[in-house]
Amino acid sequence: MSTDESGQTTVRFGILGCAHISIKLCKAISRAPNATVEAIGSRSLEKATKFVSDNGLPSTVRVYGSYEGVLDEADVDAVYIPLPTGLHVKWAVMAAEKRKHVLLEKPVAMNASELDRILEACEANGVQFMDCTMWMHHPRTAKMKEVLSDHHRFGQLKSIHACMTYNPGPDFFKNSIRTKPDLDGLGVLGDTGWYCIRAILWAVDYELPKSVLAFPGAIHNDAGVILSCGSSLHWQDGRTATFHCSFLSHLTFDLTALGTNGSLRLHDFVVPFEDNLGYSTFSEGSALDFGKLEPGWWCPKTNQHVVETEIPQEVLMVKEFTALVQKVKHCDEKPEKSWPILSRKTQIVLDAVKESIDKGYQPVEILG
Amino acid sequence: MSTDESGQTTVRFGILGCAHISIKLCKAISRAPNATVEAIGSRSLEKATKFVSDNGLPSTVRVYGSYEGVLDEADVDAVYIPLPTGLHVKWAVMAAEKRKHVLLEKPVAMNASELDRILEACEANGVQFMDCTMWMHHPRTAKMKEVLSDHHRFGQLKSIHACMTYNPGPDFFKNSIRTKPDLDGLGVLGDTGWYCIRAILWAVDYELPKSVLAFPGAIHNDAGVILSCGSSLHWQDGRTATFHCSFLSHLTFDLTALGTNGSLRLHDFVVPFEDNLGYSTFSEGSALDFGKLEPGWWCPKTNQHVVETEIPQEVLMVKEFTALVQKVKHCDEKPEKSWPILSRKTQIVLDAVKESIDKGYQPVEILG
Repeated sequence: MSTDESGQTTVRFGILGCAHISIKLCKAISRAPNATVEAIGSRSLEKATKFVSDNGLPSTVRVYGSYEGVLDEADVDAVYIPLPTGLHVKWAVMAAEKRKHVLLEKPVAMNASELDRILEACEANGVQFMDCTMWMHHPRTAKMKEVLSDHHRFGQLKSIHACMTYNPGPDFFKNSIRTKPDLDGLGVLGDTGWYCIRAILWAVDYELPKSVLAFPGAIHNDAGVILSCGSSLHWQDGRTATFHCSFLSHLTFDLTALGTNGSLRLHDFVVPFEDNLGYSTFSEGSALDFGKLEPGWWCPKTNQHVVETEIPQEVLMVKEFTALVQKVKHCDEKPEKSWPILSRKTQIVLDAVKESIDKGYQPVEILG
Repeated sequence: MSTDESGQTTVRFGILGCAHISIKLCKAISRAPNATVEAIGSRSLEKATKFVSDNGLPSTVRVYGSYEGVLDEADVDAVYIPLPTGLHVKWAVMAAEKRKHVLLEKPVAMNASELDRILEACEANGVQFMDCTMWMHHPRTAKMKEVLSDHHRFGQLKSIHACMTYNPGPDFFKNSIRTKPDLDGLGVLGDTGWYCIRAILWAVDYELPKSVLAFPGAIHNDAGVILSCGSSLHWQDGRTATFHCSFLSHLTFDLTALGTNGSLRLHDFVVPFEDNLGYSTFSEGSALDFGKLEPGWWCPKTNQHVVETEIPQEVLMVKEFTALVQKVKHCDEKPEKSWPILSRKTQIVLDAVKESIDKGYQPVEILG
């Protein structure tokens, strides 16, 4: 950790891999206070060098023709790992063992047992772990939680529906790592299903469901990777949720939560459509707004909430992660455990949905 | 059938029962061209008389202290039956046998076998049958079908999600016929689930799914009537649908259809929120509108379609029904079969979902 001109410490990031998403994260790290990109590693030095010049990074950024190079670099405090899911356990564990704090792209692992190896390594080496579920860090998310927690306006939460789909086109199905069993082997369930499951868990204050039952008719590619699927989730107290994730449909980022007295709805929960304009929105329906229109029917007026955001969610994520890393490094605090716990719960539900699909759409109990 | 001043024939309606929804239908019949309210029957003459005066109906409307009275009235051409579902088979069959055309409130029957008795009676007596799924008759519905059928903008239909919920409050759970096993014994599945299933079938051009699997965790009242439930539906070609219906959540009328290239979404599919203002809306997302915003993400612009409507959907329904009745009566045509076929398909899927719930959430095949 270095000290910048204002006397504040800076968390120096190494990046493992030049994935497309690395461009976004590089920008976010550069924009975040107290964070800098220190090093980029790729399997090819040429690729790493090109990444630095293509993205206008300072020439002081160190480039490595291997991931190990970055992990062995003493001036790197933390790593961002956007590698394919199948490689996470190897490189995240190695990063932790080299005392690098770990910001890990989602899905965090192929299964909870792999994730546990990562989390144990982080714990044993006293490093912070966080997954890259960016929307969690958006101020809209906190504002929406206020609505869900309002017992008067929203009432008791009863059901949630999340849907994230996109149709990346024919090249993707031939070439993307997201369709290869040894790379992002969880397919769409790991990619967009992760966001749906996290959103559902977020809505229920992270209480694990007692069981899941995947929808029949999941679609796999020839290599057995899931391209489209969904599931219902069930809690002891009668709350239910459903989600649908797919690589085969038009772009959708829907989240709907229904309470006894109100509803919350947005169509861009993963990436606010208007984030670049400095605000995001969501809509709230509430019993208080009902006006009886004619016999037997009501017209629900919805309130549109606008949340202003000076800083995009990916920058806020880096800022939050950096602050936690600074606490560990500087204030001798222990790593914050809430983030790894959320990652683990998301992975547990994801594993259960996959198990339900693999077992021919049988219900799967979740023990927690 | 009488002839009005302009020389056009008028279909004279009898109404069986003074249900709340009868007020809406009375108004619709009065507003529809070529239709009049001729008679009202209730189990109590006093109630029928009060209904006529409360709703400003002409004093020429005949009142009866029994449903039979209406059915025996020679001047009645057609009946609107809003009685509890459990009574449909008795009164709809009797109406058909008395040569009255049948406009039947949904859900049309407790199961497909009961419905078949009704439809057979209608066929045997040459009378028109139609169920009261009003939104089918809204011009927005036809406009939305154009979007779904646009192979360029929408592409292939992949999945549908429908949700209809409302929270009618504690009195309803004590007193409403919708929570009594011998009256509206299908509970919320018959009430709002009917609309969801019909919307899903509408989107797939009424091709029956090959199977359904209800979501675990359906909620029943002490008498065994369903208060909240949902299901996934599956077609041979990989299309899937889900729906959720509930008496326990805030008002929701959501319909989302996802295609390979586009999406269609509305939050008021059952009753357009702005119908009383003379228009309704729906939104369409399409790949053609994508603008790449930043690496890895797109911002989908949606088109808002506005459909103008001079006449509310319930009036259009009466108008359509009346036109069919006139063809039978006047032009010696056979009753139009497409409407009873839609009712039957909806009931078949509804029955399968109920069977899946009753069997502890087992998949149920649909043979068609």
